Amino acid sequence: MVVALAGGVGGAKLAQGLYGVLPPDALTVIVNTADDFNHLGLHISPDLDTVLYTLAGIANPATGWGIAGDTFATMDALGRLGGAEWFRLGDRDLATHVVRTERMQAGATLSRVTADLAAALGVTARILPMCDEPVRTLVDTPAGRLDFQDYFVRRHHQDEVLGIVVDGWAGASVPAAAATALRVADAIVICPSNPFVSILPILSVPGIRSLIAQSDAPVVAVSPIVGGQAIKGPAAEMLASLGHEVSALGVARLYAGLVTGMVVDCADSDLVPAIEALGMSALPAQTIMGDRADRERLAAEVLAFCRQLGAHAGVAA
Amino acid sequence: MVVALAGGVGGAKLAQGLYGVLPPDALTVIVNTADDFNHLGLHISPDLDTVLYTLAGIANPATGWGIAGDTFATMDALGRLGGAEWFRLGDRDLATHVVRTERMQAGATLSRVTADLAAALGVTARILPMCDEPVRTLVDTPAGRLDFQDYFVRRHHQDEVLGIVVDGWAGASVPAAAATALRVADAIVICPSNPFVSILPILSVPGIRSLIAQSDAPVVAVSPIVGGQAIKGPAAEMLASLGHEVSALGVARLYAGLVTGMVVDCADSDLVPAIEALGMSALPAQTIMGDRADRERLAAEVLAFCRQLGAHAGVAA
Repeated sequence: MVVALAGGVGGAKLAQGLYGVLPPDALTVIVNTADDFNHLGLHISPDLDTVLYTLAGIANPATGWGIAGDTFATMDALGRLGGAEWFRLGDRDLATHVVRTERMQAGATLSRVTADLAAALGVTARILPMCDEPVRTLVDTPAGRLDFQDYFVRRHHQDEVLGIVVDGWAGASVPAAAATALRVADAIVICPSNPFVSILPILSVPGIRSLIAQSDAPVVAVSPIVGGQAIKGPAAEMLASLGHEVSALGVARLYAGLVTGMVVDCADSDLVPAIEALGMSALPAQTIMGDRADRERLAAEVLAFCRQLGAHAGVAA
Repeated sequence: MVVALAGGVGGAKLAQGLYGVLPPDALTVIVNTADDFNHLGLHISPDLDTVLYTLAGIANPATGWGIAGDTFATMDALGRLGGAEWFRLGDRDLATHVVRTERMQAGATLSRVTADLAAALGVTARILPMCDEPVRTLVDTPAGRLDFQDYFVRRHHQDEVLGIVVDGWAGASVPAAAATALRVADAIVICPSNPFVSILPILSVPGIRSLIAQSDAPVVAVSPIVGGQAIKGPAAEMLASLGHEVSALGVARLYAGLVTGMVVDCADSDLVPAIEALGMSALPAQTIMGDRADRERLAAEVLAFCRQLGAHAGVAA
């Protein structure tokens, strides 16, 4: 049994790799929901949907969000009616948000709706929100404190990030299915997602750090920074503006005390000694994932690393 | 200045005719909203949209609802996710509901949103909801009391109608723009819509009957029943099951005391003496409207009839 913590695109890629190499029901993905937002009256869960669509094999590989081959008839009509167009929602994608919003308005939890959406799309991995309560990432910038999607999508993450606030975490709790999955996990994988706006918000949910700490399973993170740059998104700029080293070592320092192993790109193998000096093992690997074969190859390497680290704890993955 | 009261398809056709033959800003259409409903978390106003789309020239002539050439990508995806598919919403049509719902959730009135949608679609007629409060038609049937769209769309208006309830009317009020339009109207036209579920709900809004009664303008209704049958929908069956004569005379009796003139189809010219015996004038005309030319021809005849009836009151239309 493997638990992965994931944000959006990079996390979804490794989650898909894990899903591909593990037995159908062996994977649980705990997904960041701190960049969820209400838009056009709809509850939108960008990271949950990216993971859901990627594992269902319908994600749009060109954009990193939405559904492959989707159309934009509603969005175009919305623009003609004066509605907000900055967050592009495809027609098929929109159905997900409509169903989620309707069911949550009727009282269903985000966990419940996500499980039903996954079942409808034929995904046998458990995809879980990090919590069912509203927790939101806010970004402090020279232009003021911005809602995450305002910073990320509307303003194209071009503002300097002076600070990050996770609002609402104190009232959140780990969903029962996520707690159970962590208790029985043979390996815990922190996907190569943005540490500040994907992974640390997940870790802000009260109880999740102790569940991970109490686990006998190895905890392995994959660095989203390769050669001093993020594969996608503003992780490198955030590391820099928040005073961290912009490297896999900088990421490893953020996870020190939590992870037992760190997978870095082969391009960063010179960082292995410094990372191991933090009290964790480090493994260089080809971490840039293109197609599905890349993802499954990296997933297999990560799981082998977990087995190696957790040999004493009976890792079955 | 002309005020038309309208429900869906039949009302929209005559409203379009009036819009075509009158100066751009001379028409106000007060539209039934008692078959509005909340569906998939969206506020849907079927009659307002039919009037809006018809006057904007984008209505789907084949279905009587929705937008010509619309696609159904969201609805199809929704079905795959287990969402309700019985009320078909096209992708472009959906944008209207999303904008309306979002703006109303933010505090805008239905009147305000409708005016903005009409402006966005280039419609210069004033399209007004009958009220901004929620008023809902419920239909008593052998299967119990049904929400209107449940009766009309989901169950294909096949249940016998034993009674009709207009719920919420007591708390409703005539929107200011509708009251003003009625006060300055040179003619008031009751479109050939279903009397029970389109026109009488409008007339149930407190104050509207007295605004019409106090007007010096002629009030002319066009019968939706031709040769004992409804052009579209269940009006004939409702007249029968509710104990009325299924004819233009049956309709005229429903409007007696309110209207000064009744336009009936040429096929029903034998009913003219009986209708006139109710204390109103009656005019036979070709009332079945196909294309736009038909609609404008009938509108011109209705306006000429109004001028004739209202010569003493200075009808300018």
